[in-house]
Amino acid sequence: MGLIVQKFGGSSVANTERIFNVAHIVTETYQRGNNVVVVVSAQGDTTDDLIDKAAEINKSPSKREMDVLLSTGEQISIALLAMAIEKLGFPVVSLTGWQAGFLTDSNHGNSRIRSINSERLQKELDKRNIVIVAGFQGLNRYDDITTLGRGGSDTSAVAIAAELKADLCQIYTDVDGIYSADPRLVKTAQKMDEISYDEMLELATLGAQVLHNRSVEMAKKYNVNLEVLSSLERKPGTKVKEVVNVEKLLVRGVAKDRDVARIAVIGVPDQPGIAFKIFSLLAQRKVNVDIILQSIGRNNTKDISFTVAKGQEEQALTAINEIKDSIKAQEIVVDEHVCKVSIVGAGMQSNPGVAAKMFEALFEAGVNIQMISTSEIKISVLIHEDDDIKALNAVHDAFTFN
Amino acid sequence: MGLIVQKFGGSSVANTERIFNVAHIVTETYQRGNNVVVVVSAQGDTTDDLIDKAAEINKSPSKREMDVLLSTGEQISIALLAMAIEKLGFPVVSLTGWQAGFLTDSNHGNSRIRSINSERLQKELDKRNIVIVAGFQGLNRYDDITTLGRGGSDTSAVAIAAELKADLCQIYTDVDGIYSADPRLVKTAQKMDEISYDEMLELATLGAQVLHNRSVEMAKKYNVNLEVLSSLERKPGTKVKEVVNVEKLLVRGVAKDRDVARIAVIGVPDQPGIAFKIFSLLAQRKVNVDIILQSIGRNNTKDISFTVAKGQEEQALTAINEIKDSIKAQEIVVDEHVCKVSIVGAGMQSNPGVAAKMFEALFEAGVNIQMISTSEIKISVLIHEDDDIKALNAVHDAFTFN
Repeated sequence: MGLIVQKFGGSSVANTERIFNVAHIVTETYQRGNNVVVVVSAQGDTTDDLIDKAAEINKSPSKREMDVLLSTGEQISIALLAMAIEKLGFPVVSLTGWQAGFLTDSNHGNSRIRSINSERLQKELDKRNIVIVAGFQGLNRYDDITTLGRGGSDTSAVAIAAELKADLCQIYTDVDGIYSADPRLVKTAQKMDEISYDEMLELATLGAQVLHNRSVEMAKKYNVNLEVLSSLERKPGTKVKEVVNVEKLLVRGVAKDRDVARIAVIGVPDQPGIAFKIFSLLAQRKVNVDIILQSIGRNNTKDISFTVAKGQEEQALTAINEIKDSIKAQEIVVDEHVCKVSIVGAGMQSNPGVAAKMFEALFEAGVNIQMISTSEIKISVLIHEDDDIKALNAVHDAFTFN
Repeated sequence: MGLIVQKFGGSSVANTERIFNVAHIVTETYQRGNNVVVVVSAQGDTTDDLIDKAAEINKSPSKREMDVLLSTGEQISIALLAMAIEKLGFPVVSLTGWQAGFLTDSNHGNSRIRSINSERLQKELDKRNIVIVAGFQGLNRYDDITTLGRGGSDTSAVAIAAELKADLCQIYTDVDGIYSADPRLVKTAQKMDEISYDEMLELATLGAQVLHNRSVEMAKKYNVNLEVLSSLERKPGTKVKEVVNVEKLLVRGVAKDRDVARIAVIGVPDQPGIAFKIFSLLAQRKVNVDIILQSIGRNNTKDISFTVAKGQEEQALTAINEIKDSIKAQEIVVDEHVCKVSIVGAGMQSNPGVAAKMFEALFEAGVNIQMISTSEIKISVLIHEDDDIKALNAVHDAFTFN
């Protein structure tokens, strides 16, 4: 008999039919002799509706009260799913985040799980109850309700799986696994049977949007076996784990990310300390910088370019304008019409030909590369946003996926 | 500086405009130097919507899960009201039932408050925060969410007022106080400035439906000063307290209750033990009996009549039919077309003329009296239901109210 944690997102419990679909998946797992903990998100648009309700009253409510409000969404879901499972005749109990023992920090709206007191969870499992837990929420040390921010329910599920040393943590979603590229954009995209934590982390960061990074990081840290699969089709998904058998493929996936803007600081003196000044100030202002490129000095000046997440370019610009004179920059240019395309694969680090193959594919597709960034298991290029789908397909076709 | 508990029902927080209306009442009280604890119910139809959602999934869900579901209604209200008060620029914090320390028994859906651990409440008041508390809900000793059943938020408010020894507990509602009769039915009905707990209890039981009985009982027990007033008009309401100054009025109010049925057991032997058999059996079957009337024996037989709440007559009938032979009853008659009209007043116990005056008024209005029941502070008569408004007005007009 194993212990399986199953997580279902908001669209999986959006209406009565979907809730019963989830109830059937859960009870079938239970009937096979497993103990089952289920983590659910708020139904479909509930969270957005609650946000709208709040905005009608106060455009900038305290994050504490926002958490009190939003946490009701998952509480509704757990009760309704428990009622559906009762209807199917199985023993079940629902637990809110605080009942399930989620202790978090006090960063309302974007809290991190500090620990899980699993006493209650364990007691319910010992009674052979199916346990339904509200994802996305917890309690800080002042007994105030907190929420975990984006992708929080994934993190809740992985945290429970880690705490209870579950045999498997299944993330049910509306896609049937992790693909070598977004199947809506690349027709030849292939579903992977397995992927390593590190590859998944790079893909998640790069905009694959299937699993939230925090949950993958946690899974890697506590060695939780993840599986990403569809709640609508009954077939195996993609396993995410430490070591992946399929090493023959150099490149595991291709992803694009349009949520990015490029800022170029043009014509600063070619002398030490300029980059330090720029990036320490951006760090102070909590602007996350991704790719950084510094041109080779010419005529005693150089250019420093970097990318930030879309939405942060104004903040970055304000900061740099403040020091524009002191760093003697000639010009500051912002380009929001860019896209990052990346390839990821644990095998590429020992094969120098991979980058060349990617650049060749882009050249042949007529895509101009603006910036390049490489890590041990990924290569990213910045291109014009209009080229995104063309680039994605060209790069994907250049590598063999299956 | 005083401590005031204010309770607002679901219609008082039904939309953004109403929520700000409440926020203004609360902050004005706070600005006068008072500490304020606010108890709110779920918004307008939220509870009914949640019940519908549950029914779509499971017609008979467990009461435990129903409480998990329903308690979200008040949690939404407290967050929204807190946000409105934040918007007005006042320090505020919302607390769910369990955060406010409500400990209840485990009778899900109809729990009783066992105690309040007011540590958190007191801490927030000490910080001069306005404290918004979710009414209607608590936690049992297993850390499961419970709800208090009908009129639960009134009880929550009175319980907090008792625990914190508040100077006043204001129950805001959609009427502006307690009237000598239902003003929708009796045009000459007068609003009372004050009423005693006992009178209020009799009126609540008799169908005045302004305050729930449990909350009045609790207010009496802990000597909590209550005030019933309108959330829509800024004027004094009716104070409910132990001793009322206005003793010149014999009769304080007139009420009617159509939620009643009469059962007559005809022609039982005029010998001891018959009434005992009937009413002990009804008690066993948990049928609440209100008025009891036993005719004077004639020809060695007598008739025993009594009233029960509508909906319980079938149960009562089944029970009595089981013992019909052993008590040698000739016939059992049920009449559902009856109405109880009552007058209440602490002053009437020392004045024997009150009953006569009531009966005279009914006689002159052509209303036939079927049964009569009296207590120290009330006189009730059972009449045909078609006569209800006529009787109410006749009786009301017979006494002077102002």
